[in-house]
Amino acid sequence: MIDTVRWLDSKHNILSSIPENTESLLPGKLRIIDQTLLPGKLEYITTDKPEEIFQCIKRLSVRGAPAIGCAAALGLAAVSGKSNTLVKKTFLNELCKTSEYLASSRPTAVNLSWALKRCITKIENSKETRLKELKKILTVEALSILQEDISMCLKIGKNGLALLKNGDGILTHCNAGALATGDFGTALSPLYAAHKKGFKITVYSDETRPLLQGARLTAWELRKAGIKVISICDNMAGQVMREGKINIVIVGADRIAANGDTANKIGTYSLAILAKYHKIPFYVAAPYSTIDISIPDGQRIPIEQRSPNEIAVFNRKRILPKSVEVYNPAFDVSPTGLISGIITEKVILKPPYARSIKEFMRKTASIASS
Amino acid sequence: MIDTVRWLDSKHNILSSIPENTESLLPGKLRIIDQTLLPGKLEYITTDKPEEIFQCIKRLSVRGAPAIGCAAALGLAAVSGKSNTLVKKTFLNELCKTSEYLASSRPTAVNLSWALKRCITKIENSKETRLKELKKILTVEALSILQEDISMCLKIGKNGLALLKNGDGILTHCNAGALATGDFGTALSPLYAAHKKGFKITVYSDETRPLLQGARLTAWELRKAGIKVISICDNMAGQVMREGKINIVIVGADRIAANGDTANKIGTYSLAILAKYHKIPFYVAAPYSTIDISIPDGQRIPIEQRSPNEIAVFNRKRILPKSVEVYNPAFDVSPTGLISGIITEKVILKPPYARSIKEFMRKTASIASS
Repeated sequence: MIDTVRWLDSKHNILSSIPENTESLLPGKLRIIDQTLLPGKLEYITTDKPEEIFQCIKRLSVRGAPAIGCAAALGLAAVSGKSNTLVKKTFLNELCKTSEYLASSRPTAVNLSWALKRCITKIENSKETRLKELKKILTVEALSILQEDISMCLKIGKNGLALLKNGDGILTHCNAGALATGDFGTALSPLYAAHKKGFKITVYSDETRPLLQGARLTAWELRKAGIKVISICDNMAGQVMREGKINIVIVGADRIAANGDTANKIGTYSLAILAKYHKIPFYVAAPYSTIDISIPDGQRIPIEQRSPNEIAVFNRKRILPKSVEVYNPAFDVSPTGLISGIITEKVILKPPYARSIKEFMRKTASIASS
Repeated sequence: MIDTVRWLDSKHNILSSIPENTESLLPGKLRIIDQTLLPGKLEYITTDKPEEIFQCIKRLSVRGAPAIGCAAALGLAAVSGKSNTLVKKTFLNELCKTSEYLASSRPTAVNLSWALKRCITKIENSKETRLKELKKILTVEALSILQEDISMCLKIGKNGLALLKNGDGILTHCNAGALATGDFGTALSPLYAAHKKGFKITVYSDETRPLLQGARLTAWELRKAGIKVISICDNMAGQVMREGKINIVIVGADRIAANGDTANKIGTYSLAILAKYHKIPFYVAAPYSTIDISIPDGQRIPIEQRSPNEIAVFNRKRILPKSVEVYNPAFDVSPTGLISGIITEKVILKPPYARSIKEFMRKTASIASS
């Protein structure tokens, strides 16, 4: 539906999955939506240049952990596709250099280094030595990251759909949508599924200060799909809940601790409290990989502080007096007790999460070993 | 401290109260801070022209119910001071015409028409017929409105001070400060009193979307007084509460029903719920006149819907896609059960408000009749 990150092959086909015939895969390019121009303009950046790919990630032309991972992998494939070397070892050295460079564009983005590492490992472990074939293997691996991501999103959508009904009003925060993933998104995927099923839904989209991802991106992509969106300021969420407009809240997640505590965009915690007060179900939608069982609870999740200018300056105009301090935490943690369920691509986890997460992991492990 | 609305007399004295010697009162002018230029520039508008005064109120150069009332009354005095008529009846006709014109600048502002009416009634009821004296009576009446407003604010500050202690972190919303009144404000007045007493306080100021009164005005006036201010986005209030940074929340009020339900700037209701969840006292500060006993509860308070462009456009740049709807309620109602107390210029009312308000009114009435 939304082609956030794609592969442009040598015959100008736009790919989001591994094609049956891989002959025309290379030479190819990474193609992304330039999100810095949204919602004003829909423009694409098509490139195989490492500096451009680096800048796309750094300048947030592509954003959202899964989308960044996909873009980095496809970017690496595009750059490496142009290599002139005939020696595998040299090719691998080049790959590592490009990968390190791309990874430095957003050092804290876990998916970015994960996707790049996965691509390199594929080449390292391959018995293939012909360069043309290695380039193809690399591109197929990058495409499979994208394909898996889209498939994961679709499964979250399918699982989350069970929570929705015709006529629902849904509140969401920030952008955990198609623009943050290969397609469909996490929190927004159940909404696309509901719309596809013919449900008439109304999405209330928090504008999400300071960077307005809700106003600029969530509103844009849902409207593009023909879904009714009403944009509100973050401080209006309580009022729309009070007026009975909201049946369910669905948000994304940046990291989920072993007990279910969930870190997500600043403002999510307030929403969780407001939902509890109004007895409205509050759901987190995220791939299973977001659960970090090495962290027992949310207190161990570090909260990144971002630049004061994000708040002090709005659309190039200073809105704050210079001597005023700013507090700008990027995330907050919603405690497990406020979360009605966690929609993953596998199951909807229910509280108590410490137990449901552990049980589910045991089950998955036993299936894997059987 | 902040000279939001003042009278400039013929000797260029800047007055906020009735002087002992009223000889140089006239001809005089209304002088206001042009709040549309804050926080970038502190500039004043000095005028005796009805069109300019009308525009000052309409364009929000002066805003906040009490400040608008004071500006309208002093504006009326400045305009009428230039009248050439020698006949009281003609003077009164002129007064009524100017008053109607000024009142139409913001038709829903109750204080505006109240202050103008009070000035006209004073002239109507006066036995004086000499025009020079009538003009002086009018100006003195306008100045007494300003003087009473400042005195009311100081009393709210004194009463509210009892709730604060050295080292407190205080959260406030929008601007119920000196810039919204003759001086000191309502919600901010206890903070000025605490600062004057030598308390080291830290004020967390919600930026207050969509019009950013918290970021632009509250932060500016508190910094000007040397009070430490930290500006946050509205969606960060829950997080700063969770981190233990907030000891008390104090907000203003637009209208208080007989049962204590309080209408105030959108976002106040969410704050009240967040404060309850974190067991933080939540206080409303407002003059006694804000209590409207003709309204039994908050359900009867109409919620004004404002222009979608306030949310969709910032600094002349559109931040929302065109096809996206906007919901923009100007106020919300915090129910009585979430309010720890109402700080008035007389007493701090405590719950249950239906009873405390009734009791206080009976007491006031019996004092008045004794």
